[in-house]
Amino acid sequence: MSLPKTMQAAVLGEPGTLAVTTLPVPQVGPEDVLVQVRRASLCGTDLKIRSRHFFTDGGPAAGEFVPGHEYAGVVAAVGSKVDELRVGDRVVTEAHRGCMRCANCLAGAYTDCLNYGLRHTGHRVQGMTVNGGFAQYALNHVSTLHPLPDSVDFDAAVVLSTVGTVMHAFDVLGTLLAGTTVAVLGPGPIGLLATQVARELGARTVALVGTREARLAIGKTFGADLVVNSREQDAVAAVREATDGIGADIVLECSGAPSVVDDALRMAKRSGKVVLVGFFEQPVQCDLNHAVMNGITIRTVRGEGTGSLTRAVSLAARGRLRTAELVTHHFALTDVAEAFDTYAERRGNAIKVMLDISEDPERTRAR
Amino acid sequence: MSLPKTMQAAVLGEPGTLAVTTLPVPQVGPEDVLVQVRRASLCGTDLKIRSRHFFTDGGPAAGEFVPGHEYAGVVAAVGSKVDELRVGDRVVTEAHRGCMRCANCLAGAYTDCLNYGLRHTGHRVQGMTVNGGFAQYALNHVSTLHPLPDSVDFDAAVVLSTVGTVMHAFDVLGTLLAGTTVAVLGPGPIGLLATQVARELGARTVALVGTREARLAIGKTFGADLVVNSREQDAVAAVREATDGIGADIVLECSGAPSVVDDALRMAKRSGKVVLVGFFEQPVQCDLNHAVMNGITIRTVRGEGTGSLTRAVSLAARGRLRTAELVTHHFALTDVAEAFDTYAERRGNAIKVMLDISEDPERTRAR
Amino acid sequence: MSLPKTMQAAVLGEPGTLAVTTLPVPQVGPEDVLVQVRRASLCGTDLKIRSRHFFTDGGPAAGEFVPGHEYAGVVAAVGSKVDELRVGDRVVTEAHRGCMRCANCLAGAYTDCLNYGLRHTGHRVQGMTVNGGFAQYALNHVSTLHPLPDSVDFDAAVVLSTVGTVMHAFDVLGTLLAGTTVAVLGPGPIGLLATQVARELGARTVALVGTREARLAIGKTFGADLVVNSREQDAVAAVREATDGIGADIVLECSGAPSVVDDALRMAKRSGKVVLVGFFEQPVQCDLNHAVMNGITIRTVRGEGTGSLTRAVSLAARGRLRTAELVTHHFALTDVAEAFDTYAERRGNAIKVMLDISEDPERTRAR
Amino acid sequence: MSLPKTMQAAVLGEPGTLAVTTLPVPQVGPEDVLVQVRRASLCGTDLKIRSRHFFTDGGPAAGEFVPGHEYAGVVAAVGSKVDELRVGDRVVTEAHRGCMRCANCLAGAYTDCLNYGLRHTGHRVQGMTVNGGFAQYALNHVSTLHPLPDSVDFDAAVVLSTVGTVMHAFDVLGTLLAGTTVAVLGPGPIGLLATQVARELGARTVALVGTREARLAIGKTFGADLVVNSREQDAVAAVREATDGIGADIVLECSGAPSVVDDALRMAKRSGKVVLVGFFEQPVQCDLNHAVMNGITIRTVRGEGTGSLTRAVSLAARGRLRTAELVTHHFALTDVAEAFDTYAERRGNAIKVMLDISEDPERTRAR
Repeated sequence: MSLPKTMQAAVLGEPGTLAVTTLPVPQVGPEDVLVQVRRASLCGTDLKIRSRHFFTDGGPAAGEFVPGHEYAGVVAAVGSKVDELRVGDRVVTEAHRGCMRCANCLAGAYTDCLNYGLRHTGHRVQGMTVNGGFAQYALNHVSTLHPLPDSVDFDAAVVLSTVGTVMHAFDVLGTLLAGTTVAVLGPGPIGLLATQVARELGARTVALVGTREARLAIGKTFGADLVVNSREQDAVAAVREATDGIGADIVLECSGAPSVVDDALRMAKRSGKVVLVGFFEQPVQCDLNHAVMNGITIRTVRGEGTGSLTRAVSLAARGRLRTAELVTHHFALTDVAEAFDTYAERRGNAIKVMLDISEDPERTRAR
Repeated sequence: MSLPKTMQAAVLGEPGTLAVTTLPVPQVGPEDVLVQVRRASLCGTDLKIRSRHFFTDGGPAAGEFVPGHEYAGVVAAVGSKVDELRVGDRVVTEAHRGCMRCANCLAGAYTDCLNYGLRHTGHRVQGMTVNGGFAQYALNHVSTLHPLPDSVDFDAAVVLSTVGTVMHAFDVLGTLLAGTTVAVLGPGPIGLLATQVARELGARTVALVGTREARLAIGKTFGADLVVNSREQDAVAAVREATDGIGADIVLECSGAPSVVDDALRMAKRSGKVVLVGFFEQPVQCDLNHAVMNGITIRTVRGEGTGSLTRAVSLAARGRLRTAELVTHHFALTDVAEAFDTYAERRGNAIKVMLDISEDPERTRAR
Repeated sequence: MSLPKTMQAAVLGEPGTLAVTTLPVPQVGPEDVLVQVRRASLCGTDLKIRSRHFFTDGGPAAGEFVPGHEYAGVVAAVGSKVDELRVGDRVVTEAHRGCMRCANCLAGAYTDCLNYGLRHTGHRVQGMTVNGGFAQYALNHVSTLHPLPDSVDFDAAVVLSTVGTVMHAFDVLGTLLAGTTVAVLGPGPIGLLATQVARELGARTVALVGTREARLAIGKTFGADLVVNSREQDAVAAVREATDGIGADIVLECSGAPSVVDDALRMAKRSGKVVLVGFFEQPVQCDLNHAVMNGITIRTVRGEGTGSLTRAVSLAARGRLRTAELVTHHFALTDVAEAFDTYAERRGNAIKVMLDISEDPERTRAR
Repeated sequence: MSLPKTMQAAVLGEPGTLAVTTLPVPQVGPEDVLVQVRRASLCGTDLKIRSRHFFTDGGPAAGEFVPGHEYAGVVAAVGSKVDELRVGDRVVTEAHRGCMRCANCLAGAYTDCLNYGLRHTGHRVQGMTVNGGFAQYALNHVSTLHPLPDSVDFDAAVVLSTVGTVMHAFDVLGTLLAGTTVAVLGPGPIGLLATQVARELGARTVALVGTREARLAIGKTFGADLVVNSREQDAVAAVREATDGIGADIVLECSGAPSVVDDALRMAKRSGKVVLVGFFEQPVQCDLNHAVMNGITIRTVRGEGTGSLTRAVSLAARGRLRTAELVTHHFALTDVAEAFDTYAERRGNAIKVMLDISEDPERTRAR
């Protein structure tokens, strides 16, 4: 694969804007891999990046920074020390590379790197602290890329970045899911995929709680035993009833709605686990005393972690993940601004909005 | 359900013999449940009980003791303090009830009860330290019984006792199976069920190693990605090759063959986990230095543990366990001696040999 | 030891009152132990019991119920199945006995028993759901009692109930304390003992945060490397500075003040652990998003758990716990009302207020 | 500190020999730190390196390779990306730096790096796969160095490398030591330090088993509650008796004697943990069935791991580690051959044999 010198890329402009521009194709360092991006998707964090609320210091100058942390593509070049991947391999990315020398990275918690954002230490987060995947080429540390089996198309592959978060949320609990009762709050992409993964990994009962019927209907398709519209039903009561009055072993808060945390705590069983996966924009008020009196643990997960993508790819490779229902829109890279608007405003019930970036002959146009 | 005063039961006789006799139906204590046994199966431990090698003190007097720790049936009576189950409920048993007051039981390790065998402390193991299920009625502590969904017939239910062991072997590792590589050594009932469970719970690669082609063929049906006949192939090399040269994340030793332990250690990856599930009749010689140099952990599991049966029942309730292939023979209780011989000598390729005990109108005679 | 038929006991009267009355000495069940109580102490929960806010249903009728869950004494009688203890043994109590048959108890989480408060299942909490230790005799399940070495006097022994909570708070983290940085919020008895235990078990840095100088001074004596008066200093900044800007590995919230939770989250390092030990009387408002973005886990502990008292007694037996500084007052059982007032109003800087119950020749009157 | 171009170093010669030669001072890479070595100690692995049995491929050419993985010194230069340390800092080393991109390193298990020995991936083990500390200067990755407090002299510091192994052996168990019963087999440096650490971290009972009285006497000084000379006593019986017949919660096998493994298994309690720390030169024969029947877990540790040195330094900084008793000999670097002979032949009851390398004015000559 001969590499061009320049590429098209979506870059952050003035606050709230994105533009497509021409940038140099990145230089490949010894442990780096250059990915020809085929497909990328938008996530809530990308909206905060667009508005620059994501950055505590205002963020990078206009015209320089490429967002995008959910993407898949084909290896276009590898660094001198890379032997895990070869040019032509199909890959999907995870977001985080740690500094790999702080106490957290050495202990396996590289998504909580103590040198977060300090580029000179080696820490990088694709599309957040270094350039990401809304471009024809993206530069990744080799440890952030996972090979894809042929059976997983690029749409499905991009969704695996999100499945990685779900896998991590379950993995931190240190237990099999088989036989457990699981409640999922918030039927966004994470919540819907969590519903599906819980069911696939053997949960005894999976309840999904939300407010939008269309989303809940997908949850039903994805294997929820019980869907609860919390505008119409008492969600805590419904989950307790579905768990013989005991409460759920595991509750995943995926909505980011502060008011939902109290529900999460109250629908967990004594000694249950609540995992916070959603990002909250306001302080949360909740009855933590209920947690104390009932031995409830609150775990938090901001994204994928060690081994999560491997788990996600593995499940997809067996054909055990449905993702097509989540992919509602495709846009060309040149239409990135419209793609953001579509996602932000949930036009056409947008769930996952995809950017088709480099040519991709395998894509089924019929979709 | 009105209860008779007496019942038919298979009891241990002189060493190596079993006889069917009439015994009183057991009295139900406050936390006990009386089970009308419908189906029971034989396990390797039952052979050691028959020969009395199981007992360090020679064992109980002839004519008194009822073996049997894998069985399912219908609740016939409940103790005064039991509110978890009702007469008529269909149930499957696990073997162990701890004393629930020693340090191990208080910590959740009731199968490792420090008062093992001391009946006055409350510790009981069905069919081993107290009477078991090779009788028309069996007495269980309520905590050892798990309700069965209608969709699980009694043949399948009895096999769940064994699935419980498999679940515990995976559960002690404290991790999801999704994305892991698993090698199973020994295609007996435990190994075959482990193959299936690993696959269902999302393992990336499942390898099954054994010496009997007929068993390996079942393993293939049960989802093994790779079956290895270790008489014909180098099993360690085959598993390493199937795992990109790295070795398996998880190795389950289910054969009980001492010579296999070295293979288990050598097919585990650095930092991998080996779980010993098989019982060894002789001392094991193995290269433990290989384990030390490679950070390999060896876990042991002698049977089911906390929550294992719940997990097993849950998977069965979803229709995700195949067990019919393992049930090769049925005998009436009166033919218990022949059932033991059939199992011990593997007549007709016996795998699981069932005793049909109480009348069971639902059984499909066609099998 | 010949047992009297009746005993003096402090019983709950009308809301807010306690009275001393005569009650029958309890009958000893098969797994029970009767304790001649020598010393008992008051805890915050006892105040809620006195006011009856502790009970959701109003609580027991006046004149019947004996509070008290922190006490030590001498074994006066043992049940027919007890072989762990003998008459004359000196013992200290923990509060909880689980039903030992629900999923939580079977998993070792008996303080989170799913049958909490249901006496017929076997669940009991001393002084909360069954009669406790503010009486001449108390009835305990054998699993709640821990033998005391001669070197630990009864004042120190009673404090071990609280040390048990501290031990559990550290134990749930599943790691050695050696080399960790620990921040403790709230210099009440729990916080002060946590300071000491963290230091003894090898913490690299122990910071204690509070508002009362007298308490902080005790913390200094107990081994705090840093004491922070949060009325005078920014506690988050002080802890961060003392941990090289990284934050503490472990933060124990022992104050029960809702406003302190935000501090706890902000002084934890990325991937750090916050343990909530204090009880909150109001809902807590806090920046849970900070926890999510930083991978912080929130554990909760409502009291001691499996093995905690064993750990506490062990440390005391080595002479490695200082408790005398915490024991500020002694009252006779007949003065129980005054003892409660003293504790509730912190008269004379009361920390631990003791009831001297049965005769105790060994007590040093000079104290 | 101005750096010389060359340095004195002990290098591996023909099998079984070492020589002192002049080598270039190493070049410092971006994440490297150059250490002026002050003190280094010999370990059993160094003997296998001298004999070249350590190397499966014969090892490096004569005259090139510098052994030594236990050393301490002063930072002489730092790489361009290092901000954790400064020139002049006193430091101690750990042996392993992982590739930090394989699945094990990403999960925190860098001592079990899947790229072990593959230098181009970044993996390095001081004195084993890259040059080590038996030289005036040694090159370390920054993550392998830990700053020393002034109160810890270089003799003590070097011993901390070994304490790191002990800490890791306890840390992998995921529990506090307070209140546990611990048996240590083998009173070499690791076993003696394990005795001391177990006692300091709160173990209820610490038993040390060995065959040499002089070593056992040091163990007594280091806090063993019980020392057992296994030539004179039944060690299993002695440990069981000291643990109320239950067996030890934790057994550390530090002897490397294959015959001792059976003892280790038999002195562990049901559900106990055995940690293998010693290296075995022959296959081990043991009754693994005893482990299976009793739920015993076998962990292995080949050296320090994540956070171990931090824990070790922390305990030393509090003055809570005695190490002087272990340091029996000092030699100049020029006498390295004699130092090896002294250690190998245990001349003068050698335990830890030190090389005094660069000038070190602070050393107390009086020792």
